[in-house]
Amino acid sequence: MMKPELHVFKIGGGIIDNEADLLKFIRLFSEISGPKMLVHGGGKGASEMMTSLGITPKMVNGRRITDAATLELVTMFYAGKTNKQVVAALQRRGVNALGISGADGNVIRAVKRPVREIDYGFVGDLSEASVDAVLIRQFLSLGLTPVFCPITHDGHGQLLNTNADTIAASVAKALSEYYAVTLHFCFEKRGVLANVNDDNSVITEINLSNYAELKAEGVIADGMLPKLENAFAALQSGVGKVIIEHALYLNDPLKTTLCLT
Amino acid sequence: MMKPELHVFKIGGGIIDNEADLLKFIRLFSEISGPKMLVHGGGKGASEMMTSLGITPKMVNGRRITDAATLELVTMFYAGKTNKQVVAALQRRGVNALGISGADGNVIRAVKRPVREIDYGFVGDLSEASVDAVLIRQFLSLGLTPVFCPITHDGHGQLLNTNADTIAASVAKALSEYYAVTLHFCFEKRGVLANVNDDNSVITEINLSNYAELKAEGVIADGMLPKLENAFAALQSGVGKVIIEHALYLNDPLKTTLCLT
Repeated sequence: MMKPELHVFKIGGGIIDNEADLLKFIRLFSEISGPKMLVHGGGKGASEMMTSLGITPKMVNGRRITDAATLELVTMFYAGKTNKQVVAALQRRGVNALGISGADGNVIRAVKRPVREIDYGFVGDLSEASVDAVLIRQFLSLGLTPVFCPITHDGHGQLLNTNADTIAASVAKALSEYYAVTLHFCFEKRGVLANVNDDNSVITEINLSNYAELKAEGVIADGMLPKLENAFAALQSGVGKVIIEHALYLNDPLKTTLCLT
Repeated sequence: MMKPELHVFKIGGGIIDNEADLLKFIRLFSEISGPKMLVHGGGKGASEMMTSLGITPKMVNGRRITDAATLELVTMFYAGKTNKQVVAALQRRGVNALGISGADGNVIRAVKRPVREIDYGFVGDLSEASVDAVLIRQFLSLGLTPVFCPITHDGHGQLLNTNADTIAASVAKALSEYYAVTLHFCFEKRGVLANVNDDNSVITEINLSNYAELKAEGVIADGMLPKLENAFAALQSGVGKVIIEHALYLNDPLKTTLCLT
């Protein structure tokens, strides 16, 4: 039997930080038919609030550390403010959104990142067994649209700050058992650009062999690298399609599609 | 056919503000067998955070007004911090908690309180039709334990600050169609006290006729009045039993039970 389609969308800080952009994305997302879900990242708001409260961001080797005070604040911001704002806006558009963290229904159980050279603090890593695809599928069967914030838990009472790209890829992989999943990484560009200064230079297809070249040439660098690693891993684990596209032009014909071959 | 039992618990700020008390309550709650749910109130944390951020609480005639800044902060605090802390702690105890606001799954749709003498701001009032008992029942059928924070929405994109006692009573009433519901108002006393200075002076039964006397005598006053009005209204609308008890002694034989006759 053909698996039904499922669309998993991920949006990040660039969209969340601008309310007009966020509401435009939500309108476009609400027009997508069939089962779907949304994973949202953080945004700058939590950092700004920390500054206002006099909490100094802890950094080690240029990377942010999630200490107890940071975790409390990002939980408030991601699971409280952003998640409920998105859910209420989706409800307005007729989408029966259910905002959840990984702790809710135990849908995503993570492991605190082991301390090696750096102690990242309360950061969660996901494994193959982290996602409860059965319960998420039951939510979808009830006509609900899950909206995940980037907070998970360890099952022992500890909440954990977790990368939203990783959540999106893990959920997409887990649901691939039941659905033909398309994973959409949405951001503020029309796709992966050959020339960062030219918005029309979208590379329409990236496969494993030109990916290696693009990496070597430095065309794909920085934050795009882990995103693409996640994306290829998702494709290799059964996700049908991965698309990198502009959050505000979901129907744009110009986008980057990833292929294994 | 006999309706299955359902226990609806409400806890307020007095328990939430003390982490050790909250965790003790959660352990006791986790030991309650059968379908159950929890509604939690606010607590002082949100006000303290507002003060730290330099937001001055707006008061009119001694009552707090939920302006836009206050709503944003209480949403972060109630739906983010408190709700996810409670959910993670319940998961640790083996309770498959699902933390939700009224916007999630559109389970509680409220109406912004009309402006009369006082403009309360973004405060939600509930009606008979506010609660989606069908979806809540489906959550229970999946083995989930809903955990409600005191935030609802109006269906038009607006989140609303909503009294937790009212949410507990409304949810209990709506679920009475399918369950024999016991509504538990838990606080820091063993029940309604005849003498506030004597913790053992619990009035074990309050019915409509001695309630009128207790009100006239001033034994029941202040915050206990709306709680009891809510409780009697719940009994009159089909809730099987209402108990007022100590959050940290759920098995205490001394408690106040409300009766219509």
